[in-house]
Amino acid sequence: MPVTQADIDLAHRLADAAGAVIRPYFRREFGLEIKDDRSPVTLADREAETAMRRLLDAERSGDGVIGEEHGEKLGVTNRKWVLDPIDGTRSFTVGRAIFGTLIALVEDGWPVLGIIDQPIQRERWVGVAGRPTTFNGVPVRTRACAALEGAIVATTSPHLFDEGDVQPFLALVAAVSGGKPRQGPVYGGDCYNYGLLASGHLDIVCESGLQLYDFAALVPIVEGAGGRMCDWNGEPLTAASEGHVLAIGDPARMDEVLEAMHGVLGHEGHDHEGHDGHDH
Amino acid sequence: MPVTQADIDLAHRLADAAGAVIRPYFRREFGLEIKDDRSPVTLADREAETAMRRLLDAERSGDGVIGEEHGEKLGVTNRKWVLDPIDGTRSFTVGRAIFGTLIALVEDGWPVLGIIDQPIQRERWVGVAGRPTTFNGVPVRTRACAALEGAIVATTSPHLFDEGDVQPFLALVAAVSGGKPRQGPVYGGDCYNYGLLASGHLDIVCESGLQLYDFAALVPIVEGAGGRMCDWNGEPLTAASEGHVLAIGDPARMDEVLEAMHGVLGHEGHDHEGHDGHDH
Repeated sequence: MPVTQADIDLAHRLADAAGAVIRPYFRREFGLEIKDDRSPVTLADREAETAMRRLLDAERSGDGVIGEEHGEKLGVTNRKWVLDPIDGTRSFTVGRAIFGTLIALVEDGWPVLGIIDQPIQRERWVGVAGRPTTFNGVPVRTRACAALEGAIVATTSPHLFDEGDVQPFLALVAAVSGGKPRQGPVYGGDCYNYGLLASGHLDIVCESGLQLYDFAALVPIVEGAGGRMCDWNGEPLTAASEGHVLAIGDPARMDEVLEAMHGVLGHEGHDHEGHDGHDH
Repeated sequence: MPVTQADIDLAHRLADAAGAVIRPYFRREFGLEIKDDRSPVTLADREAETAMRRLLDAERSGDGVIGEEHGEKLGVTNRKWVLDPIDGTRSFTVGRAIFGTLIALVEDGWPVLGIIDQPIQRERWVGVAGRPTTFNGVPVRTRACAALEGAIVATTSPHLFDEGDVQPFLALVAAVSGGKPRQGPVYGGDCYNYGLLASGHLDIVCESGLQLYDFAALVPIVEGAGGRMCDWNGEPLTAASEGHVLAIGDPARMDEVLEAMHGVLGHEGHDHEGHDGHDH
C-alpha cells in the first residue's frame, strides 16, 4: 500500500521520540573513566532505539523492525522499519551537531519513506516516494551542476574506504578538484551530507561500507529532491551493492561521475538512464 | 597593558557585528551562475570584516588591524586586532554550521584575547590570557587524556597537508587509532575543533598551513582551558612555525604526541616544560 499520512505522522513521532532521548546526552560530561558500553553515545544510541521500538510495537506490531543497536524483529507484513538512532557517532562524541537519526520505512524491499533528523539543531529532512522532499516542512531541491570540475564532493572519512575502494574515490576527487587541494572533498558529516545534497548545498556524496540502516532513509530523501542514489556502478542500491553508495544531486552528471571513478574502459557502460525502475 | 573589560566587551561587539552580517548569507540560494567574487561566502567574508573594521576604526583608531580579506592596517600602539570573518569557508559553503568567526587581540606579538564565534548555532568561546576560557559565558576545561591510544584527533582535511607534512600526521593517527579505522581522525571542522577541544570533547588537533589569522584567536582559548598550543616541535607558535599547529588538551600527553609524530630520534627533544614563556 502507498505511504499514508498516518505513516508520515508516525515517522515524525519516531524522530521526536529519538531526539528527546538523545538531546540530554549530547556534550554530557561523565567521569574520566567511561567504559565503552556506558559512554554517552552508546547509551543515547540504545535508549533512542528502544524508544522508537516501543512506539512501533504499540502501533505497528505486525511490521518488521531492524535497528543498528537491537537487531531485527521479523514482521508479518510487507513492511519493515529501519532505524539508526545515531548515524555519525564520531560527530556526536566530539560535540558536533551534524549527526542524525535515520528512520526508513521499507516496503517490499524498497525504501518508500525516509527521515534524517538532527535533534540538536532541530533540522529534519523527510522524503516520501512520489512526493517532494521537505526540510523542516519546506520543499527542497538538489541543485544543477554544470560540470564535474568544481562540483563539491563530500564523504565522512577517507579511512572508511576499503583498500580497493580508495582508488575510485581519489579518481573522483581528482576530477572535481582539478588538482586544487582546497577544492578537495568536504569530510565528516555522515547522513547530514545527504540532507545538504537534497537541499542543494553540495553535489555528490561518495561512500563505501554503508549498511542498510545507513542508507535506506537517504534514498527517498535524495530522490524526492531530484537527485539519484545508486551504487558505484550506477545500479539501484541493494544488499549486493556492498555498501558502495553514491548520491548525485544533478542526474545529468551521473555518467561522468561513474566514468571518473572507473575510467571509460573499466566502467561497465550500462545505460544508466534505463535504471529508473526504482524511481516509482 | 593587560586585557581590560572594555577590550573584552569590544571583542564581543565585533563578533556580534560579524554574525549579523554572516547569518543572512548562510544557505542562501543565488542563481545557478555564481562568480567566485559574488558567492555568498565571499560576500559574507568581506562584509563581515568591513563591519568589524568599522567598529575598530571608530573605537581603537590607533591599533593595528590585520584581516584575511582586507589586508593589514598598521597601528601606532603595541596592539593589533587579527580578524578572520569566516574560518571554515568550505563548511559555510555546504551549509554546515561548524565554521567560525575568529577575533584575536595581539599585544607585543602575543595573542592575549581570542574569540571563536559560531553565529548560526550562537556558540561563542572566549579566551583571555590569565583567565579561564568560557563557552557561552560558562567556564570550560580541556579533558584529561590518560593514554595516546584512544585519544581523539581532529583535522580539517588530509588534503591540506603539504607533502612532507603527511607523514608526521599519519604517524600520529597510527598512534591514537591502534590500526582501527573507526578510531581514525575526525575530519572537517576548522576552528570549531579547537573550541571543542577547549570544552573537553576531543583531545588533539593537528594541522599545517595555518596563517596568523587562523590560529591567533585559538591560543588564549585553548591555553585558558588548560590545554597547550604549539608548533610541531613543541615550540610556541610564531611566524617561524610555518603554519604547523598542534593543540593538545592534556599537556601531560605533549611529549608522546611529538614523539609519535617525529619518532624518538627525529624529534629534537626539547624540554617542553620549559617553554612556558608565552603563558604570561
